[in-house]
Amino acid sequence: MENNWMNFKAIFFSTFCLIVLSTLKNGLPAQTPDRQADARVIRQIYDQALTDGRCYAWLRDLCLGVGHRLSGSPGAEKAVQWAKSTLDTVGLDSVWLQPVTVPHWVRGEAEYVQVTASKKNGAWRLNALALGGSVGTANQGVGGEVVEIKNWEELDALNERGIRGKIVFYNRPMDPTKIRTFDAYGGAVDQRSSGASRAAKYGAVGVLVRSMNLRLDDYPHTGALRYDSNYTLIPAVAISTNDAEKLSAQLQAEKKVVVSMKLNCQTLPDVLSYNVVGEIRGSEFPDRILLVGGHLDSWDVGHGAHDDGAGCTQSMDVLRCLLRMGYRPRHTIRCVLFMNEENGLRGGREYAREADRKEEFHVCAIESDAGGFTPRGFSFEGDDSVIGKLFDSVSACQDLLAPYGLNLTRGGSGADIGPLRGQKGMLSGYAPDSQRYFDYHHAATDVFEAVNKRELELGAASMAALVYLLDKYGL
Amino acid sequence: MENNWMNFKAIFFSTFCLIVLSTLKNGLPAQTPDRQADARVIRQIYDQALTDGRCYAWLRDLCLGVGHRLSGSPGAEKAVQWAKSTLDTVGLDSVWLQPVTVPHWVRGEAEYVQVTASKKNGAWRLNALALGGSVGTANQGVGGEVVEIKNWEELDALNERGIRGKIVFYNRPMDPTKIRTFDAYGGAVDQRSSGASRAAKYGAVGVLVRSMNLRLDDYPHTGALRYDSNYTLIPAVAISTNDAEKLSAQLQAEKKVVVSMKLNCQTLPDVLSYNVVGEIRGSEFPDRILLVGGHLDSWDVGHGAHDDGAGCTQSMDVLRCLLRMGYRPRHTIRCVLFMNEENGLRGGREYAREADRKEEFHVCAIESDAGGFTPRGFSFEGDDSVIGKLFDSVSACQDLLAPYGLNLTRGGSGADIGPLRGQKGMLSGYAPDSQRYFDYHHAATDVFEAVNKRELELGAASMAALVYLLDKYGL
Repeated sequence: MENNWMNFKAIFFSTFCLIVLSTLKNGLPAQTPDRQADARVIRQIYDQALTDGRCYAWLRDLCLGVGHRLSGSPGAEKAVQWAKSTLDTVGLDSVWLQPVTVPHWVRGEAEYVQVTASKKNGAWRLNALALGGSVGTANQGVGGEVVEIKNWEELDALNERGIRGKIVFYNRPMDPTKIRTFDAYGGAVDQRSSGASRAAKYGAVGVLVRSMNLRLDDYPHTGALRYDSNYTLIPAVAISTNDAEKLSAQLQAEKKVVVSMKLNCQTLPDVLSYNVVGEIRGSEFPDRILLVGGHLDSWDVGHGAHDDGAGCTQSMDVLRCLLRMGYRPRHTIRCVLFMNEENGLRGGREYAREADRKEEFHVCAIESDAGGFTPRGFSFEGDDSVIGKLFDSVSACQDLLAPYGLNLTRGGSGADIGPLRGQKGMLSGYAPDSQRYFDYHHAATDVFEAVNKRELELGAASMAALVYLLDKYGL
Repeated sequence: MENNWMNFKAIFFSTFCLIVLSTLKNGLPAQTPDRQADARVIRQIYDQALTDGRCYAWLRDLCLGVGHRLSGSPGAEKAVQWAKSTLDTVGLDSVWLQPVTVPHWVRGEAEYVQVTASKKNGAWRLNALALGGSVGTANQGVGGEVVEIKNWEELDALNERGIRGKIVFYNRPMDPTKIRTFDAYGGAVDQRSSGASRAAKYGAVGVLVRSMNLRLDDYPHTGALRYDSNYTLIPAVAISTNDAEKLSAQLQAEKKVVVSMKLNCQTLPDVLSYNVVGEIRGSEFPDRILLVGGHLDSWDVGHGAHDDGAGCTQSMDVLRCLLRMGYRPRHTIRCVLFMNEENGLRGGREYAREADRKEEFHVCAIESDAGGFTPRGFSFEGDDSVIGKLFDSVSACQDLLAPYGLNLTRGGSGADIGPLRGQKGMLSGYAPDSQRYFDYHHAATDVFEAVNKRELELGAASMAALVYLLDKYGL
């Protein structure tokens, strides 16, 4: 009974929306829904992705053949060439490189961070990674007494008197009770992004940040910081969660703990790089675009497998899969592999600027940048007055996607497609299961072997299914 | 709007069901729903499991301290003692061992299976594991030409003329297009369970079965076979998926391929073992039981971590978690760790027999035996006339469980609780994400390190939340 009602509601909604759509929005003809035909196409998409998918083999090439690829690095340059030549084999209507100037931060020789004075443990080295964008230290390094901080109130209360000349240790863990781990990340990442300048304001000489990781392990997780130019730029590193626990315990026991750190990182002049773009030209609305994408750059550790080799190779496979099925889209379907999501977002900004200049309207942009895990759905954002109807018409297809474990919700989308917000189309974030994501995020653990083939393929199929529905029922 | 309607529907349903329930079924008083209070308790359950859960530490003990534990083995005996003494620390009302006589199959010295004649590859050894229950070979082993079979029609068509004296190689893969991997397993496991006798009927001397694994890798996956006593008992092994592919390719190329195998397994006399049971006594209905359980035995490779250390330690943690919250249940909440699910189901049968004898009614039995992965929901089975109302009253709570990613559906439950079907209560299977399960199932890969802490804990919390709702709104 429940199912019948859901079906009825779905059909009612979609019919209603399609009537509204076909009388509004330039009078463009929208398709009449044929749910059985849609179900067959979606089944065909999944069959294709699960029996003949390429994303996993491509991810292997990218991870093991190219490796990590921070903006401006030789790895990033190699990745651009790899992506271009791989997309060239797919048979798309066009593949091109879009130039974009990116920042060029380099880690240099590995950082060295150690507790120098300690009664119980003696001197010991911390598992650390300089935060992306951090300044290096002078040759002799910096050192100071450690002050542990859990929240901004504590920092502000200590003030200059308690902070000057010291090393601030941010140790607020990600909240394990958040069911979506991205919520836990959101509640802790301010320490990494703004902690250095907020400590520098009170005269700190360096910063240690507990890694954004829900597990206790020995891997430091890097990530970008943002300096406030009003304050001295001080060096900042992430330390592993195990070391954060150990350091905290030592501070409890001994009160005074001294850490020294030497960082060899620096920011070099900007470098020319590229977004990699490929598309299947739309038969009816070539200037109305359905975008799927991820970011090609990664941090300079591990393979950038989940973040975001997965999203790139899934996006590439969406186009290959539809083409292989002989599907000819009404809208242009475009795959964009953005450069520089991790430390600048220059690729996303340049892409949106160019799209505006060319008057290309993005009906919907879908980003996959939450790992190659089992699909749970998509979240959609955009101004109600504009995307309301589009979201409703996709939601009306919920019953077609439920057998594949997909839920459609309102929510966030992705960083790279954010600059397209001005177009007032719909933005969507592919939402895989989030539980394991922060085990790998920005760490040496984010390797090809951590990605499961089926989970990755199911994600590509889910994205292709959404693209198909948007192409059929979208504006 | 949709949400309001769902809430309304939920409240309407539950109110309706509660009225019906309170006028039926011995006139037992059911609770009036207080959704906000329920939401708070469920939140508290998840907080407890995610910040103070024990299942992961217990799983470490079981996997690394005890190891694998096939029925009748020293490992199984050690596991029983470990489970009993661990449950003793929880503060339950009672913990006991329930005697059960179990089969005692032993692998003996590792099996040896090799291709003896081959033009291209020379002789090569296959990664193989004798199937559980298989007879051994004579000292000199058995050998014969290999016949590849994809389905029963092929086997029957070849008949005695094509099969006698040969080794049948079952090579029908699990279907990767099934979204739920258990459906793919269901479509292939007949080769493992009945292939030996069906080949023996036509005079085969041995059987090779492609492992029940969706991946291509080098790990053989064992599992039980069932002999038909009308035919000769012939030895049977699982081979890795990579070796199945290689062997198949060689058969294509060379037509005649000879395999020899030596198996040292045998079935010894039955052994006394135990189900391990612990309970919190119900304050209102002590003889009405809500059961959570998994199976304590495992195959004799890996650690039996996902199968089914996960289900055992989650079930144990459900009781600990509720107790720790100070929750006093109306019904008796019982954790049962069944012995011998893998190769006999003697524990499940004995448990049901004893429950019937004692006139203990199981309102609902929930089994976790599908791995320690991220929760997706629960499936429920039972006769409509009996469980219809109970399922509806639980379904009415769907909105309370949706924030935790849980869907409630009609479907199967679990092997160990199957023998309780006669009681006409409700049976439920905990349904985690299934994508990775068959990477580990019955193979050397099923180790502690393959289980993610959060995913395991979320499963325990999900089970505890369902138990809470059943305790509050159940019969």
